[in-house]
Amino acid sequence: MTEAASSITAPAITAAILVIGDEILSGRTKDKNIGTIADYLNAIGIDLKQVRVVPDEEVEIVDALNALRERFTYIFTTGGIGPTHDDITADCVAKAFNVSIDHDPRAVAMLRERYKPEDLNEARLRMARIPAGADLIENPISRAPGFKLGNVIVMAGVPSIMQAMLDNIGPTLNTGTRMLAESIDVGGLPEGLYAEALAGVAKGHPSVSIGSYPSFRDGGFRNQVVVRGKDADAVAMAVKAVREAVSGLTPDDVPA
Amino acid sequence: MTEAASSITAPAITAAILVIGDEILSGRTKDKNIGTIADYLNAIGIDLKQVRVVPDEEVEIVDALNALRERFTYIFTTGGIGPTHDDITADCVAKAFNVSIDHDPRAVAMLRERYKPEDLNEARLRMARIPAGADLIENPISRAPGFKLGNVIVMAGVPSIMQAMLDNIGPTLNTGTRMLAESIDVGGLPEGLYAEALAGVAKGHPSVSIGSYPSFRDGGFRNQVVVRGKDADAVAMAVKAVREAVSGLTPDDVPA
Repeated sequence: MTEAASSITAPAITAAILVIGDEILSGRTKDKNIGTIADYLNAIGIDLKQVRVVPDEEVEIVDALNALRERFTYIFTTGGIGPTHDDITADCVAKAFNVSIDHDPRAVAMLRERYKPEDLNEARLRMARIPAGADLIENPISRAPGFKLGNVIVMAGVPSIMQAMLDNIGPTLNTGTRMLAESIDVGGLPEGLYAEALAGVAKGHPSVSIGSYPSFRDGGFRNQVVVRGKDADAVAMAVKAVREAVSGLTPDDVPA
Repeated sequence: MTEAASSITAPAITAAILVIGDEILSGRTKDKNIGTIADYLNAIGIDLKQVRVVPDEEVEIVDALNALRERFTYIFTTGGIGPTHDDITADCVAKAFNVSIDHDPRAVAMLRERYKPEDLNEARLRMARIPAGADLIENPISRAPGFKLGNVIVMAGVPSIMQAMLDNIGPTLNTGTRMLAESIDVGGLPEGLYAEALAGVAKGHPSVSIGSYPSFRDGGFRNQVVVRGKDADAVAMAVKAVREAVSGLTPDDVPA
């Protein structure tokens, strides 16, 4: 089977992540959600194509939402759906889609499972403000739901709650052919020694993407070549070609 | 001194980060540079306003560079400046600025400090391809330099090398008034209980930004309120107001 004959014809399902949070931009909080979502999407056959982090400012959030939702199949947002004044994500989504937003009876019912009537104050009810037309995403940890409106999926910023929402919404999404990846550990072989051969392999295997990833530890580089593609045969052929290309090379005395 | 009288008049110095890397989007590599750069910029008085992660694709990189460099004082890129075929950042920066790119004699000289003449092959010389007009950023670890062209600062993706480049370029940058931040640990006090009072404090202290950040651990929420601003007096007054607002509140039996 040639690479051309085995090429993938299923349409790619793409995604972007929009992280909403001053706390990430200030450095106070180190984001963990991007990596979690990236892993998850990769595993189910959705291609993550872009990430943006924006501050808790309406114009920034709305502009990013509108730019991304035109381009990608799904947009995953994290952050800004709590009860405090700086939680403005739901309102921004409503504004981006030009729909109304109000307390959603389904969301209020979820909050009632957690809060006694006398504890369900106005601030907590803010978490039931959902743009018109959205589907809710259950939150098994603290009940306040995420939601999906059109292709925008709105999740919490707290990693454990985000994960639970992702687990809930994931199985309902359209997925494409999963991206396969195989790593070839080339150890201390310097990138500069195999770069030319690797470029040749990449040129000869256009249906896969080939990346070279150095890491630096203990005073020296350790390199990995990763072949990614959606067709198992094409990936296998490229991996074989990479292995052949590097097999004849021996490190020179330059550790890079 | 009123808040108005103490308002900051120095122009804000802003920044964006552009992470270039399929490996981040695929989930293979968990980014650490965003947090490092965010902390660094915050410490020297540069306001990080946006982050984007894009794949190793020319059109994506060039478009992001052009969108960001128009809006922010500085753009910091990470990744894509090695010797392999997937390292296309320098060429993309040249394209974004519409300038030529070629082997830069200063960069070649740096590589010669690391590589013997017979080891300095074409692939390694790729790391000396620098857009015309750029200033180099020294790399004490593996010599191949980063560079600064206009307001775009191009750094390595390997965290230790990125950090070294950041340490080199940082002191040369224009900086503004440093953002001050003070955290108030409100412990297990639920956000929903102090949200209304906090909104009042935020409204009364418009020169600072006030955020509420929950974390979830051991089955319960722990919350922190963070006051950020550039004027020490204004921050102190808002912190005092936050403490007063939460001091009279006692947790109800809802751990959120």
